[in-house]
Amino acid sequence: MIRFPAAIALCALSCLASAAEPRARELGVPFEGTPGPLNAITDVAGISVGQVTLIEDLDNGRKVRTGVTAILPRGRGTFDTPVFGAWFALNGNGEMTGTAWIDESGQLEGPVMLTNTHSVGVVRDAVIAERVRAGGADASGYWWSLPVVAETWDGELNDINGFHVRPEHVATALAEARGGPVAEGNVGGGTGMICHEFKCGIGTASRVVDDGNYTVGVLVQANYGVRDSLRIAGVPVGQYLRNYMIYSKPPARAGDTGSIIIVVATDAPLLPHQLRRIAKRAGMGLARMGSYAGNGSGDLFLAFSTANAGALKGDAVSQAGFVGLDHIDGLFEATVQATEEAIVNAMVAARDMQGNDGKYAKAISHPGLVKLLKKFGRYSPKR
Amino acid sequence: MIRFPAAIALCALSCLASAAEPRARELGVPFEGTPGPLNAITDVAGISVGQVTLIEDLDNGRKVRTGVTAILPRGRGTFDTPVFGAWFALNGNGEMTGTAWIDESGQLEGPVMLTNTHSVGVVRDAVIAERVRAGGADASGYWWSLPVVAETWDGELNDINGFHVRPEHVATALAEARGGPVAEGNVGGGTGMICHEFKCGIGTASRVVDDGNYTVGVLVQANYGVRDSLRIAGVPVGQYLRNYMIYSKPPARAGDTGSIIIVVATDAPLLPHQLRRIAKRAGMGLARMGSYAGNGSGDLFLAFSTANAGALKGDAVSQAGFVGLDHIDGLFEATVQATEEAIVNAMVAARDMQGNDGKYAKAISHPGLVKLLKKFGRYSPKR
Amino acid sequence: MIRFPAAIALCALSCLASAAEPRARELGVPFEGTPGPLNAITDVAGISVGQVTLIEDLDNGRKVRTGVTAILPRGRGTFDTPVFGAWFALNGNGEMTGTAWIDESGQLEGPVMLTNTHSVGVVRDAVIAERVRAGGADASGYWWSLPVVAETWDGELNDINGFHVRPEHVATALAEARGGPVAEGNVGGGTGMICHEFKCGIGTASRVVDDGNYTVGVLVQANYGVRDSLRIAGVPVGQYLRNYMIYSKPPARAGDTGSIIIVVATDAPLLPHQLRRIAKRAGMGLARMGSYAGNGSGDLFLAFSTANAGALKGDAVSQAGFVGLDHIDGLFEATVQATEEAIVNAMVAARDMQGNDGKYAKAISHPGLVKLLKKFGRYSPKR
Amino acid sequence: MIRFPAAIALCALSCLASAAEPRARELGVPFEGTPGPLNAITDVAGISVGQVTLIEDLDNGRKVRTGVTAILPRGRGTFDTPVFGAWFALNGNGEMTGTAWIDESGQLEGPVMLTNTHSVGVVRDAVIAERVRAGGADASGYWWSLPVVAETWDGELNDINGFHVRPEHVATALAEARGGPVAEGNVGGGTGMICHEFKCGIGTASRVVDDGNYTVGVLVQANYGVRDSLRIAGVPVGQYLRNYMIYSKPPARAGDTGSIIIVVATDAPLLPHQLRRIAKRAGMGLARMGSYAGNGSGDLFLAFSTANAGALKGDAVSQAGFVGLDHIDGLFEATVQATEEAIVNAMVAARDMQGNDGKYAKAISHPGLVKLLKKFGRYSPKR
Repeated sequence: MIRFPAAIALCALSCLASAAEPRARELGVPFEGTPGPLNAITDVAGISVGQVTLIEDLDNGRKVRTGVTAILPRGRGTFDTPVFGAWFALNGNGEMTGTAWIDESGQLEGPVMLTNTHSVGVVRDAVIAERVRAGGADASGYWWSLPVVAETWDGELNDINGFHVRPEHVATALAEARGGPVAEGNVGGGTGMICHEFKCGIGTASRVVDDGNYTVGVLVQANYGVRDSLRIAGVPVGQYLRNYMIYSKPPARAGDTGSIIIVVATDAPLLPHQLRRIAKRAGMGLARMGSYAGNGSGDLFLAFSTANAGALKGDAVSQAGFVGLDHIDGLFEATVQATEEAIVNAMVAARDMQGNDGKYAKAISHPGLVKLLKKFGRYSPKR
Repeated sequence: MIRFPAAIALCALSCLASAAEPRARELGVPFEGTPGPLNAITDVAGISVGQVTLIEDLDNGRKVRTGVTAILPRGRGTFDTPVFGAWFALNGNGEMTGTAWIDESGQLEGPVMLTNTHSVGVVRDAVIAERVRAGGADASGYWWSLPVVAETWDGELNDINGFHVRPEHVATALAEARGGPVAEGNVGGGTGMICHEFKCGIGTASRVVDDGNYTVGVLVQANYGVRDSLRIAGVPVGQYLRNYMIYSKPPARAGDTGSIIIVVATDAPLLPHQLRRIAKRAGMGLARMGSYAGNGSGDLFLAFSTANAGALKGDAVSQAGFVGLDHIDGLFEATVQATEEAIVNAMVAARDMQGNDGKYAKAISHPGLVKLLKKFGRYSPKR
Repeated sequence: MIRFPAAIALCALSCLASAAEPRARELGVPFEGTPGPLNAITDVAGISVGQVTLIEDLDNGRKVRTGVTAILPRGRGTFDTPVFGAWFALNGNGEMTGTAWIDESGQLEGPVMLTNTHSVGVVRDAVIAERVRAGGADASGYWWSLPVVAETWDGELNDINGFHVRPEHVATALAEARGGPVAEGNVGGGTGMICHEFKCGIGTASRVVDDGNYTVGVLVQANYGVRDSLRIAGVPVGQYLRNYMIYSKPPARAGDTGSIIIVVATDAPLLPHQLRRIAKRAGMGLARMGSYAGNGSGDLFLAFSTANAGALKGDAVSQAGFVGLDHIDGLFEATVQATEEAIVNAMVAARDMQGNDGKYAKAISHPGLVKLLKKFGRYSPKR
Repeated sequence: MIRFPAAIALCALSCLASAAEPRARELGVPFEGTPGPLNAITDVAGISVGQVTLIEDLDNGRKVRTGVTAILPRGRGTFDTPVFGAWFALNGNGEMTGTAWIDESGQLEGPVMLTNTHSVGVVRDAVIAERVRAGGADASGYWWSLPVVAETWDGELNDINGFHVRPEHVATALAEARGGPVAEGNVGGGTGMICHEFKCGIGTASRVVDDGNYTVGVLVQANYGVRDSLRIAGVPVGQYLRNYMIYSKPPARAGDTGSIIIVVATDAPLLPHQLRRIAKRAGMGLARMGSYAGNGSGDLFLAFSTANAGALKGDAVSQAGFVGLDHIDGLFEATVQATEEAIVNAMVAARDMQGNDGKYAKAISHPGLVKLLKKFGRYSPKR
């Protein structure tokens, strides 16, 4: 298995997002609110992202189009200090391991891992194995043995039943995670994903809130939705851009059978019950895209706060900061806005991809999108 | 207290929706999907709606602007046969009584009542008293003593601390409930409500699904939202229509401090866990309007199915029909669509209203809305 | 309506608990853990309890056997400063208003009121009215308009359809609430309650935890359970004490059709998601009594913490203390233990009561209970 | 790796339950209710159980003490036809994968797998791989890719960081699953488990309900609890049997750091929301044992119904039977009773086990238990 970047050579099409390519707002999609410097989840200080992309055409003719994305809430300190966290299932046709403990403890005790549906298990156990290997205060593994791994299903483009994700890919994603710009589109866990019947994948965005005191960052692995319902910035794009996936046989998908994982991070001090409120708002950003959370869609959202590091050392009594009830609306609004933009970013960054069984997923046309924005009076280029 | 229609004379402004007035789609707002004949919750066979509107200028100068709306899932048979039901709190800053039993039993055992925040109690006990008065199989009252009453807060226009809703208003709303067209805007529980800082109130809409086999109907009591975020059919209306409420002093509201109750009814056979899925989709319709479910907003949604009447007689074993997993998406989409339209209908039907303390709530301008729809290429008059 | 204490004269039987009467542990029931000085919820500093008991034989022959119990988490400061709170429904065949907001905000913003099923509404609105009357920072009522009122059904002994609880009873319960010993048995909201087919009502107990640093207090309004399943301190009491209620006609109850409200208070600093864990443990104390939470039983539990008063003033950012994960077990165990004892206290304190329609509920026999404890090697008198 | 039965030879101690050994009720522990013929989960027709036990002393000195238990709700038909299901977390310090989809769909779509904490992932992916290998209607794997795998932590006796469970063990457990008697104690996923500081593991029991029309079966993987709190049939056994685990160093466990997975099966026709009620009652059986669900305990419960096979074929509309509200109490009580007995069975069947690092877990003494039952008047031998 060859992983990114060597895989580039294997990718006859321009499978990978280029840093030089425009992001959604640069194309002219109007968004509300003020993004952070990177307009990425890594605008929240301390967050590291590591991605391993697996793209290969096997000798047996099968195409590997998958990977792993790791989000480390506290970078290198992720395994030492938990963050407060919460999750919400808008439509639970998906897997996110570790959620029972998030609900109970209000804590997220390690990284958030994203991959394909059939590789959740290998990634989960590998996170434990990595932690055992690294050693640490609790060598028994008892207190960090409930990893959080979420998935969407890339079986249309990827040889999902080949189980190509391996423990070493997990180790690499964790080891190479860092701050700074985050690759979008056909990368990491999002490599083989499709949304609104366009090629899709990983996307990210951020918002600064309350005069810059707080940042909200969102990262999505987007794989949901039907074409007709797609709205971008309120424009009924899906009803105008009709070039669908190309298949050698009838499409496996009928209806909204994909999924989307949305991870919301913030440095605002929020308690677990407040982070659950944040997680719910991710679904409102998704709804703005035209999604109705179809039966087949695993729409699972996770929110965490990097604040309160000192309060999560396991002391008998700790002090945690939290935002007052009347001061939380800006964070809600930022979550909706950043989610909306992260999804559009994932679509815009993705590139056409050849999959298995003659399936070929087209990315959204940038000129086509711009034309529609203009037609509906919504063209607004900016950075 | 004088109630509708006598109250008309007391209403110096055109407070009440007129049947002759256009609804949102007649104004040219484009909506997806196919409505039922009435485009109302009463398109679901058997559903009756009764509304009592209380509008009066008291001698002490206080303005009464409130009421009660009753939804009877099975019309006259509502107290004899439950419906399967479920609820969902998108943001729980509100009251909906009876929900613990809905969660537990999967049943809604009487009417759904909507009123103002300070009148939930009187309405709740009055529903029990009405049932005691009517007699029936279980004279003890034991099995129908957990009424469902929900609220939004009309304290900006209504003399809410005057507690003007009385048991007799509940009796009337129940007694006069019937099918057919449903009055919208400044009526019933919605009389004094405001949304996106426009006068608002009761709204309704429906969709037919799956070649007309099923109907989904929605009724909202809408009182939520800030102006800026208002989107109608994707058009950023709130950023263009800037005429706010008129106050004699600074507005009591800061941020999204209102609420919305959304009731979704269907004749599709759905089990309780499926109806919870439906209830969640109501929030996706709300999100399309630009809401981010602010901290102060009680966004509580209830869904029920009028099917399976024969299965809910309390037999030792009954047979209930239910829609298969792969056949439910149409109902999800219909719920999102009908919710979106019901909210816009509530805004379009509402009329300017004079409240207390110099507060005066303006309704959305129909010509202003049409102008914006045209500006953004979204004007689409139809019935 | 005459309320306690004047009602004593109307009570032909010894309806009321006497302070001189032994509590369960004084009878010899063995309990685990260390109670506080009062062995009552009021051992948690600041908690006030007020109870209004309505016992009257009406001229029309109907018997009034009901009342109101008010628990004020911060005594007089209850309306000024919320507490962190959470709730849990073990079996939701009951009403507890205000829970959507508890879930959302993590806060309990006023008193906890207990009454009969048909009086929840009047009590709810009366709490708002009292607050309006008292005035305060937010005269609009907007921020304290979601009162928490819970109920159990006393319709076997009380003329429940007479709606005898009135707003003035609520005002009195709130006004007269204080710390110190709490009356148990046939008092307040528990006046007409029955559990395990013995006369029951209000009961309370407490535990000190962790060398006395923390206190957990429990108050129950107990009205649940069948006779056969009753276990006290592990002794199968219900299978030996067979004197059932006396009826003039077949009993209305079949199976476990009652309910129990359990309120758990602590001064330990706990966050909302931790208080939900506490609330769940109340059900484990109930289970020790032999309950299986029958379909007809509304088993609703509320937990709150009086700590963190300074953190709940609504500031933009506050600091809240909380117990670390590894230090919470003592609080869990104390909750189970105090719940178990509070229920037994409710049974032991109750007295025989004449109800309507020839129904007469017998209290558990103290000598009979002692005899069984001895038979099974569990007699352990102590204070 | 050598698995059962060859592993017997490697087990210097009598690690394995013998069919000839008495079960708890044969020892004289009194239980309520009527068990089915096998007093096992397999009394529910169609349920198959397969267990692979891994016991080996490795050359490096490490001890392998773990395994896999598979429960197939419909035996061979498990992968073709789902069952209605639901789950409940009493304390979520554990993993049960697949629960988001159980919540959403109300369905359990494959087997229930039990193993150790660090092997959840390998078991999960292996279930998918087995299904891919077996082929079937949906070769893509799309509709059965959310396996349910639960765990408890055997790291005190087992070399958990050696990751000794392999995909082939999963295949064997699935392939060899059958009806009939179920091995208890140190077998399958329960091999290395400990409860109330006694050696523990797998246990099972059943109840017939309502004149034999329905059966409720329970299987537990028990690994929870502290010694002091242990109650058996109400007898405070834990306070008398004081022989604790033998360690070469201080015990890793402080407090209730184990876990228990409880699986409840029934042939009674129950809908998903009703099965959630059943799952909750499992916790009431656990509470009777003296558990207070300590912070470290992953107490996760799953309930499913084998009825309604014809209704779960994915038709556009199906008919499902369900028990009426007033007829469910027998199933609740049976769940509590069978859970209680299954746990005691797990303890009684377990045998002493040598673990790693000098740890040696003693099983409960049968004569010691009998002596205590007699002392407290609770000795009641029967089959």
